[in-house]
Amino acid sequence: MSKELVFGHQNPDTDAIVAAKAYSYLQNQLGYDTEAVALGEPNAETAYVLNHFDEPTPRVVTTVKPEVDAVMLVDHNEFQQSVSDIESVQVTHVVDHHRIANFNTDQPLEYRAEPVGCTSTILTNMFAEKDVKIPVKLAGLMMSAIISDTLLLKSPTTTDKDKEALRALAQIADVDYKSYGIEMLKAGTNVDAKSDQELIDADAKSFDINGKNVRIDQINVVDFEDVLKRQSSIMTAMNNEAQSEGYDLFLVLVTDILNSNSKMIVVGEPTAAVEKAFAAKLTDNVMDLPGVVSRKKQVVPQLTDALN
Amino acid sequence: MSKELVFGHQNPDTDAIVAAKAYSYLQNQLGYDTEAVALGEPNAETAYVLNHFDEPTPRVVTTVKPEVDAVMLVDHNEFQQSVSDIESVQVTHVVDHHRIANFNTDQPLEYRAEPVGCTSTILTNMFAEKDVKIPVKLAGLMMSAIISDTLLLKSPTTTDKDKEALRALAQIADVDYKSYGIEMLKAGTNVDAKSDQELIDADAKSFDINGKNVRIDQINVVDFEDVLKRQSSIMTAMNNEAQSEGYDLFLVLVTDILNSNSKMIVVGEPTAAVEKAFAAKLTDNVMDLPGVVSRKKQVVPQLTDALN
Repeated sequence: MSKELVFGHQNPDTDAIVAAKAYSYLQNQLGYDTEAVALGEPNAETAYVLNHFDEPTPRVVTTVKPEVDAVMLVDHNEFQQSVSDIESVQVTHVVDHHRIANFNTDQPLEYRAEPVGCTSTILTNMFAEKDVKIPVKLAGLMMSAIISDTLLLKSPTTTDKDKEALRALAQIADVDYKSYGIEMLKAGTNVDAKSDQELIDADAKSFDINGKNVRIDQINVVDFEDVLKRQSSIMTAMNNEAQSEGYDLFLVLVTDILNSNSKMIVVGEPTAAVEKAFAAKLTDNVMDLPGVVSRKKQVVPQLTDALN
Repeated sequence: MSKELVFGHQNPDTDAIVAAKAYSYLQNQLGYDTEAVALGEPNAETAYVLNHFDEPTPRVVTTVKPEVDAVMLVDHNEFQQSVSDIESVQVTHVVDHHRIANFNTDQPLEYRAEPVGCTSTILTNMFAEKDVKIPVKLAGLMMSAIISDTLLLKSPTTTDKDKEALRALAQIADVDYKSYGIEMLKAGTNVDAKSDQELIDADAKSFDINGKNVRIDQINVVDFEDVLKRQSSIMTAMNNEAQSEGYDLFLVLVTDILNSNSKMIVVGEPTAAVEKAFAAKLTDNVMDLPGVVSRKKQVVPQLTDALN
């Protein structure tokens, strides 16, 4: 069997990097020859996680066709969020927890999606189904991915399966996930250390929503002011990138991870659709979104409705 | 939980109808409220199966939005093969064994695809994973679907999982699957009873292949002459339908189920790409395809390559 690469989305978050490692491990146990790679450097939170569990940073790739003919995707499926030459290789496996869009294959494949909070939750159950034991260190990493994606089980994307998986993984890893989780989430919120450009790129994803090219970034904070005090220069960076990359809309969701609220900075058009989507008004390009913490569940579907 | 409809593709074959019944049963056991329906009347083979196991014909629907907001798909995902108003409802679950194309959702969903010979094989394993017992009659139906899709395990789409599932189901149903299977497959080959229009429609699916609207029908026979003696009038029907429906290419794969060979009748353009796809020449619009029995594995990918 030829070697395949396993990777998560561009601008990888903790789940994108950890799920690739977990799925690659599982598949190798089942007889495949795979390597987990990443489409970018780990962010501050993921770096904290890898360091905490003494796990090496994955190799970063920008193309895959030079080295393999087939790949396995985790934590994403939309081609514009994947590796640049995704359409020149065969996608043989996908494990994901997002909507399916701008994804197609010529051949039948193995596709496993569940509407849960984290890819690592699905993988936890796949290990059990395949009767493969999760190593202690990997359990710590997968536990971290669930904490990251569900904001310590507080995001509305959280399901009972995420809670069960997190508890099972914490037990294997022998970690008090609550105190560890708060430290880990805080490690990802150091906004001062980042340039405006880094802030608007770090967790950004592109979406084709009814012909509109929509860019949505998310920044986790413990205090909105850490970002809003720099709003003017951040908006300049957003406008510049929207122009150079052809984004119709650029949204930056700033999320207070301790209180589970967000504010959103909006540039581009149509802003009327954005206001309609969230039944809220923009003031000085900022919208108050109390209770919103999930891009996937509380932003993308609402925008899709409004842009239809 | 609101009621959902479960159904397979248009022009349903045995797997499309049986997998809907099996998945609906499984989901209802798990607490969902679903009804299995079909997008067309059962073909001769499926009628034989339903009659043999004394199972009622499913209700046929042409639209779903009037009665439900959400649906579950089996044995297909491409919207042009689904119900006419598929884009006006939410797809919450898919169980399938085909490529993924022309499929998208606004919301995360449960998607279970495996590259095996039959949807009912995947479902057999899902019953085991969920610890739900397969009733005797349903086992007979699911066994029939696997026999149908794999031509009694002789199609190249057949995997070890199909073989294991077929044997397990035959044991539950207490049926000698080999002798039953030959009778069942023969029941589906009565070509003389069908009009030209019925023949070119019965198992036809549409594919968007690189902007070309390609229609591919498959007719199972025990003797090629049953179809080829009517080639001229069948081609008239194919040309008329290609014109009225806007098909660029219309292919009718005639498959000898006893000897596992096919001949293909071709109308439309580009025929050069069809010849290139199969490295074979058309003679009087017919191509000899020894060893070809699977549209999914031995026709669609080859055409996709050639039309690229």
